[in-house]
Amino acid sequence: MQEIKVIRLKDELQLREPVFLVGLPGVGHVGKLVAEHLIEELDAEKIIEIYSHHFPPQVLVDENSEIHMVNNEMYICSTDECDILILVGDHQSSTAEGHYQLCDLYLDIAEEFGIKKIYTLGGFPTGQLTHSDEVLGAVNNPELKEELVNAGVVFRENEPGGGIVGASGLILGLSRFRKMDAACLMGLTSGYLVDPKSAQSLLKVISRLFSIEIDEGPLEERAKEMEKIVARLKEVEQQQQQMAMPEANIKDEDLRYIG
Amino acid sequence: MQEIKVIRLKDELQLREPVFLVGLPGVGHVGKLVAEHLIEELDAEKIIEIYSHHFPPQVLVDENSEIHMVNNEMYICSTDECDILILVGDHQSSTAEGHYQLCDLYLDIAEEFGIKKIYTLGGFPTGQLTHSDEVLGAVNNPELKEELVNAGVVFRENEPGGGIVGASGLILGLSRFRKMDAACLMGLTSGYLVDPKSAQSLLKVISRLFSIEIDEGPLEERAKEMEKIVARLKEVEQQQQQMAMPEANIKDEDLRYIG
Amino acid sequence: MQEIKVIRLKDELQLREPVFLVGLPGVGHVGKLVAEHLIEELDAEKIIEIYSHHFPPQVLVDENSEIHMVNNEMYICSTDECDILILVGDHQSSTAEGHYQLCDLYLDIAEEFGIKKIYTLGGFPTGQLTHSDEVLGAVNNPELKEELVNAGVVFRENEPGGGIVGASGLILGLSRFRKMDAACLMGLTSGYLVDPKSAQSLLKVISRLFSIEIDEGPLEERAKEMEKIVARLKEVEQQQQQMAMPEANIKDEDLRYIG
Amino acid sequence: MQEIKVIRLKDELQLREPVFLVGLPGVGHVGKLVAEHLIEELDAEKIIEIYSHHFPPQVLVDENSEIHMVNNEMYICSTDECDILILVGDHQSSTAEGHYQLCDLYLDIAEEFGIKKIYTLGGFPTGQLTHSDEVLGAVNNPELKEELVNAGVVFRENEPGGGIVGASGLILGLSRFRKMDAACLMGLTSGYLVDPKSAQSLLKVISRLFSIEIDEGPLEERAKEMEKIVARLKEVEQQQQQMAMPEANIKDEDLRYIG
Repeated sequence: MQEIKVIRLKDELQLREPVFLVGLPGVGHVGKLVAEHLIEELDAEKIIEIYSHHFPPQVLVDENSEIHMVNNEMYICSTDECDILILVGDHQSSTAEGHYQLCDLYLDIAEEFGIKKIYTLGGFPTGQLTHSDEVLGAVNNPELKEELVNAGVVFRENEPGGGIVGASGLILGLSRFRKMDAACLMGLTSGYLVDPKSAQSLLKVISRLFSIEIDEGPLEERAKEMEKIVARLKEVEQQQQQMAMPEANIKDEDLRYIG
Repeated sequence: MQEIKVIRLKDELQLREPVFLVGLPGVGHVGKLVAEHLIEELDAEKIIEIYSHHFPPQVLVDENSEIHMVNNEMYICSTDECDILILVGDHQSSTAEGHYQLCDLYLDIAEEFGIKKIYTLGGFPTGQLTHSDEVLGAVNNPELKEELVNAGVVFRENEPGGGIVGASGLILGLSRFRKMDAACLMGLTSGYLVDPKSAQSLLKVISRLFSIEIDEGPLEERAKEMEKIVARLKEVEQQQQQMAMPEANIKDEDLRYIG
Repeated sequence: MQEIKVIRLKDELQLREPVFLVGLPGVGHVGKLVAEHLIEELDAEKIIEIYSHHFPPQVLVDENSEIHMVNNEMYICSTDECDILILVGDHQSSTAEGHYQLCDLYLDIAEEFGIKKIYTLGGFPTGQLTHSDEVLGAVNNPELKEELVNAGVVFRENEPGGGIVGASGLILGLSRFRKMDAACLMGLTSGYLVDPKSAQSLLKVISRLFSIEIDEGPLEERAKEMEKIVARLKEVEQQQQQMAMPEANIKDEDLRYIG
Repeated sequence: MQEIKVIRLKDELQLREPVFLVGLPGVGHVGKLVAEHLIEELDAEKIIEIYSHHFPPQVLVDENSEIHMVNNEMYICSTDECDILILVGDHQSSTAEGHYQLCDLYLDIAEEFGIKKIYTLGGFPTGQLTHSDEVLGAVNNPELKEELVNAGVVFRENEPGGGIVGASGLILGLSRFRKMDAACLMGLTSGYLVDPKSAQSLLKVISRLFSIEIDEGPLEERAKEMEKIVARLKEVEQQQQQMAMPEANIKDEDLRYIG
């Protein structure tokens, strides 16, 4: 198999004012949850499958015990205003080189479809189990900020402090070389768990950006399941705090200095 | 040495209705044990050696202190109904890229021999030391299921939940691109130990699929040895349970949510 | 994206007696702190950006929530005597291969500018939290030593004992193939923390080497911040020493023998 | 820099009945110690330097604070009977691929010099701190065994059980493809420490094989130093045995079954 294999299920596609949404697995799977939810609710159609030896050498098994190889997939759907190209996947690249190769491929395809604007969806790890409704933003072009603020996105100086790792960040960087506008939208999440609740917050922002109505039902249910687990984890956390280590004397804000 | 080196010990081979069996090392070495047992019991003949820098840079030492380089090997043997091409090896690829390259090579050779059907053999880790006779299946084509169920294979929704990692899974995925039918047959096993007992269960299924009689003697003996070790490990397990951590408060079924 | 992408912001550059200063992240970020400080104090101008898939697949976020891709950058500035080419960056290569590829690229550019002398700046980990004002040196040509000793650099037999890892060392090795003189200047530092104080010591040496005056103000402030943290860490250290392990019976000087 | 860079310090070399000795770093640095000792005692001359991005991106610092890049080197020396080509180095490849590439390069050079026989030198980890004078052998051609047994080498069924990892093993495997005879000679050693005492045992075997006299003085001294450290480690070992874990219930001979 060549390094990357692209299978097109449809050709001769003409997209209308297309916007590119990227929702790959990552912190709290927030971006993936939102993208998959949109695909379902907007009856998106699969148009491209991407396979690569930069993905883990693995297959997944479905409810009929049929396998499919780990891949990334692109879907299209329409709103009144525009078409949306959505990228989802089982995994991100498991190599640094692969991240660069694949993100460049995604952008090649995006360019081919005449994409002008990109939103990458992800999670921002707070380390706190208590939920916040906030959606944090970062952009590769300051002109994007106003529209995003109006949709409820928050911008904070130098946040995320550790930068944005993986496709959600790299696509912003690489699209800049192609003069494409791109923003990363991150739902705040603990960083420990899959977080449908943070996905709901992010979904609200998306709905405003595309002025569409999305039924949150399925996410709602998963969110309820999680709350039970979070409750249990909080107990554990407390137990652990009681056996705190001397290191705890170092305040969090110091850690950023540690080389 | 080129990335992959294939040494053919025999050419001009004509195979009769050939089926491809893959038994590489993996969980509990179940697939490897079965494949090696078949090679011995069916007097299979070695026809191909495969060397690659995707295998660990290592040699193994035999009973005469002679070395052989880590490799994968292909054997052929015959039943009344068909010929069987068997892949065994010391190791699987130690790189993700290598998994893709090597599995594609295996399938090139399989195509060359006119293989129509593939069974990859492996183990399915239960985390439990108590033995189960079950053999779990996954397929790349639903039409394969009936025959397998008749041979005693069990199919369970979305199992294995973590997918199938390595050659046993990847070969199912990649063979689909070549319109070859492939199934993965997994003996249930603890995941902690080499498991000849699980290999016996899998061997029974194979015997039915090929309607052949196989003497289980040698596997039987190794299985007995293992039972003693398992008994000891169970003691250890109990001792450890007595010093359980607070994390234990989180139920297993929660873990699948952990991002 | 090709393996390495070089963006030149200025062409047709003529440099006067140019010297190459390398200040990439490393032990205590000493080299990086000094290089960034020089860029600011000497109003250096950015001339080159280097992107590579050998850098982590990541973007960083600035005070305006704008991103920039992890990269390395080259700046030029002038003193009365010469021009200085300065290399700084967010990260070093995250692969061994990348270290070799990138260091060779840096030297290609250095050669193109007619560089005759190179100083790589780094930190030398002492494992001790108590500050030392010392700057340790290593060279790829003994003739460099006299000038450096006069500027306050110390040379110690076989130090650093573990060699010099990463670009600061590799550039010395690779530049030798090109008959370029290069020295590595290392500020002593604990190895646990970003160390602006060690950067000040190294900056003093640089000032003498280029006979320039540099305002240490900004470094001074950060140094003060750190002292507080160091104080706290020392407490922790003491607490930990009270729960010392039996291994502690092995004297430090023995460890170098451990295979 | 290309993947591998070979610098020849001498050309037009004619070797007499040359034998190839490989002494790279490894278990207990036994092979490296012997090879370096031979180079010194036999006044061997350096003829080749090998640099590669498969070595760690690092330089080492000598007693004059001069650096040299991590590399492998080849030396030649003469005995009454034959010439000896000796390979030594600071490191082995840090990638699996590199092991294959470099070992093939070593063999290309060996073939060019008309090498017929190869001895790779290494250590065999016993996990025991008590010294054994034994030297274990493995071969890629059974005809080599008689001569080696006469020189005091011991052969044991399937030992080393884990195979031989790295260049010492791989060279045996790859040289077989070139019809070159090769043996690996392993001094028994704890596996925890640099072991000059084991190197002495191995040196005795080499002396017999080449019927040469070698002064063991320098090794003798280092061996004495080590004995003190070993004594201390034994104390530690005892202390630790007193806090043994339940796992200790599993007998060593069981571990080979663990998957």
